Amino acid sequence: MTTTIDKLNTVVEAAHAAFEKGRNAQPETRASWLEAVAVGLEGNADALVEIADQETHLGEPRLRGELKRTVFQLRLMAAEVTGGGHFDATIDHEEPDWGMGARPDLRRLNIPIGVVAVFGASNFPFAFSVMGGDSASALAAGCAVVHKAHDGHPNLAVRVAGIVTAALDHAGAPSGLFSLVTGRPAAEALVDHSLVRAIGFTGSTAGGRTLFNRAAARAEPIPFFGELGGINAVFVTPQAWNARRDEILLGYASSFTMGMGQFCTKPGLLFIPGGQLDTVREVLRNALADFAPAPMLSPRLHDGYRESVSDLGNTGGVEVLVAGDFAEAPMPTVLQTTAGAVRNDPSILRQEMFGPASMVVEYNDESELPEMAQLLEGQLTTTLQAEPGDDVAELSARLTDISGRVLWNGWPTGVTVSYAQHHGGPYPATTSATTSVGTAAIGRFLRPVAYQSFPAERLPEPLQDSNPWNVPQRVDGVWRMPKVSVRAATGGGL
Amino acid sequence: MTTTIDKLNTVVEAAHAAFEKGRNAQPETRASWLEAVAVGLEGNADALVEIADQETHLGEPRLRGELKRTVFQLRLMAAEVTGGGHFDATIDHEEPDWGMGARPDLRRLNIPIGVVAVFGASNFPFAFSVMGGDSASALAAGCAVVHKAHDGHPNLAVRVAGIVTAALDHAGAPSGLFSLVTGRPAAEALVDHSLVRAIGFTGSTAGGRTLFNRAAARAEPIPFFGELGGINAVFVTPQAWNARRDEILLGYASSFTMGMGQFCTKPGLLFIPGGQLDTVREVLRNALADFAPAPMLSPRLHDGYRESVSDLGNTGGVEVLVAGDFAEAPMPTVLQTTAGAVRNDPSILRQEMFGPASMVVEYNDESELPEMAQLLEGQLTTTLQAEPGDDVAELSARLTDISGRVLWNGWPTGVTVSYAQHHGGPYPATTSATTSVGTAAIGRFLRPVAYQSFPAERLPEPLQDSNPWNVPQRVDGVWRMPKVSVRAATGGGL
Repeated sequence: MTTTIDKLNTVVEAAHAAFEKGRNAQPETRASWLEAVAVGLEGNADALVEIADQETHLGEPRLRGELKRTVFQLRLMAAEVTGGGHFDATIDHEEPDWGMGARPDLRRLNIPIGVVAVFGASNFPFAFSVMGGDSASALAAGCAVVHKAHDGHPNLAVRVAGIVTAALDHAGAPSGLFSLVTGRPAAEALVDHSLVRAIGFTGSTAGGRTLFNRAAARAEPIPFFGELGGINAVFVTPQAWNARRDEILLGYASSFTMGMGQFCTKPGLLFIPGGQLDTVREVLRNALADFAPAPMLSPRLHDGYRESVSDLGNTGGVEVLVAGDFAEAPMPTVLQTTAGAVRNDPSILRQEMFGPASMVVEYNDESELPEMAQLLEGQLTTTLQAEPGDDVAELSARLTDISGRVLWNGWPTGVTVSYAQHHGGPYPATTSATTSVGTAAIGRFLRPVAYQSFPAERLPEPLQDSNPWNVPQRVDGVWRMPKVSVRAATGGGL
Repeated sequence: MTTTIDKLNTVVEAAHAAFEKGRNAQPETRASWLEAVAVGLEGNADALVEIADQETHLGEPRLRGELKRTVFQLRLMAAEVTGGGHFDATIDHEEPDWGMGARPDLRRLNIPIGVVAVFGASNFPFAFSVMGGDSASALAAGCAVVHKAHDGHPNLAVRVAGIVTAALDHAGAPSGLFSLVTGRPAAEALVDHSLVRAIGFTGSTAGGRTLFNRAAARAEPIPFFGELGGINAVFVTPQAWNARRDEILLGYASSFTMGMGQFCTKPGLLFIPGGQLDTVREVLRNALADFAPAPMLSPRLHDGYRESVSDLGNTGGVEVLVAGDFAEAPMPTVLQTTAGAVRNDPSILRQEMFGPASMVVEYNDESELPEMAQLLEGQLTTTLQAEPGDDVAELSARLTDISGRVLWNGWPTGVTVSYAQHHGGPYPATTSATTSVGTAAIGRFLRPVAYQSFPAERLPEPLQDSNPWNVPQRVDGVWRMPKVSVRAATGGGL
């Protein structure tokens, strides 16, 4: 089952050869490969969801939804590259009167970087795994993908990889464009391989940082696009609390327990006005009373969950507000602390509990909130629960400083795949300034190259004046957009 | 003279405070700050060029040209941010029928990252130094800049910094937005400082890699945008050689000796058909006979130049073709080798000689060229000297693989500042996929943030439906470009 180093080398070399063959494919052709993969996954939905549920306990409704998301994502990426905006095609014609002296004909576009290694996550066996966002965006960019299977769902990984490979072959994609490898030795060799040009990773801070360091220490360093999770603090203003206390607590309880709290966007902190803890306990207890727990993704995660909740619960200034348990299918736990305790020990705000637990932080005065925000590390998301009359300019600014996405009166779980999505954030939320969700994720796997004074017929299609692929071009500083395609205009109906 | 650590900390904190004050400034306001700096530099041109010439020996014509370029660069960056494209403003309206399930209102824009540390280069005392491309693009992005002065031109650095600071103050920019620091302890503390969010660097591979490693090893790693130079190989096809041999050799001699060969784009390798070495020697000798040498930028660079030329000259398979010298103002040297020798020892192709030296590589057959290209490391530029009938598709592809910019029948020295410029390339040319020249350099110092379900009046201006700043917006997948401003349309006349 474990991929040997010899095999790994063969796989990466085949991926590189496939990249070479496919790199100049017209966007429509590449889109057809992604579409074939989407069709393959859809056609095997029943079997895939069944295997996934056996291996992850996430339940059929959630897994069907996740597979739908995964298929949609492939089609959105396909539509995006068909539009051609990812080329960022930029044409500067020769200009003898350019302000600093004569300018030669110079044209730039983005090209795919080569073989991308993708490390899948356990908590999204479809959407952040074998053919999840990293793989889909790398293939859309024109790269080849070698995927390191997560050992949390090994059978599903092999099954999905088989479907993907068959679909790509059938669609005429170069053989070797996508491969699956397993085991730690192969994983390390993958990060070190000279033909691997970037890493996409979703997982823990510790594991991600280890691989980040390894990628940076290579003779030729490569970018490590790591999504390492986060705490996702939620700030409730006094006005919002007065207006919507129970609604907020119910939304919170529902969001932090969703998927057994195994989301990187789980709200792990709720800042609320102090002095009403008995009521809060009561509302949360009621809200969680009927919660139907499921086993966690793996025994290892279960152990980690128990340990993190215990550690944080035993920290000075932290108490248990709603006691859950650590049964095989654990009932949710809510901890509580105060802004004063946090001020004494900011590490209270920096401990992720991956599972159905969260912490309520009481503050005395609204003016403490920006200070609390500044004690947080980088976050994938932060959320404001506020009212129209609230003055939260300062708090908003502090949240923007530390966040990839800021929400207003919502809950961070549920990450839509769209043009404007940014699933990222300052370290340790991620190891880069990029997103791993949405069409902008494609850009991670491209790099620019400029052509100076090239004959027209030798230029890549996106840089030709005749624009045969009908892509957006910036010409002498001014963007010229092609006629909007039906596909892009009806994105909502994809 | 040397900045103490205490002083460095004060400077960085002041820079952060200035960033906070200026980060939300309207693009026109930020542009006015850059314009003020441009005016300040122009108004002091005579004095600046005189100091620069004393410290660098680069000569008045070159230095006047470089200052002109530097001023132009500031204005082009100002115009670029005024256009607002750098925000990459993306608006996804709420869409209940989105293919994966209801989509909330989600909007993304790029925001400045904070304080940027810039390490200047010795070889461009204006264009890649105190107010060079890194500083200009960081200020344009909305960041604050702390510049580490290069010890190759200390007086110029202080003088330029004084002009910049006065101009910014006079224009109403927040105090502390730009500062100069000096000395190695301050440099290291700068890379480590928690408020520093990115590094811009132009210099040697060894020095750059050391700082890259340091930036990656921080508790919170930050991006290191290093331009580390390169070899800039030029490939001459047999047809081009037959058609334009002398013209090519004269162009080569002129390009590799320009600025005493102290350009990161100096052509360091010339691949030519074999068997005509006597003629080549004769033509190059004649071309270089009247060369008027100047002292190099510093005694340290002179020592390094002598050492690198001697080392490479003493490598097996390498001979001296045209003997120069290592006088205080050294006459140029041309080495020669063969494709066969390179095949035995590819390291021959990987040794930069920073100064007026280059190497000719004889090949036997055109078919060897793609192989030679594959033995090269990452390059800022590569160049094809070819004829219309040449089939160089394979060689072009290999050059694209390793280059930031590929030229056709030109010479790599002379890097225009424009929209399409890409001054970058795979490691060791740079440590990132970005450019340090041209308007695209601004993007290095931005990061995206998304706002979900925010009330209209609380959104940053570029994300508001009413688009008060008149910036390009991508709305529900479709780009809407504002009416072209006169400024952008007349970019050539800036």
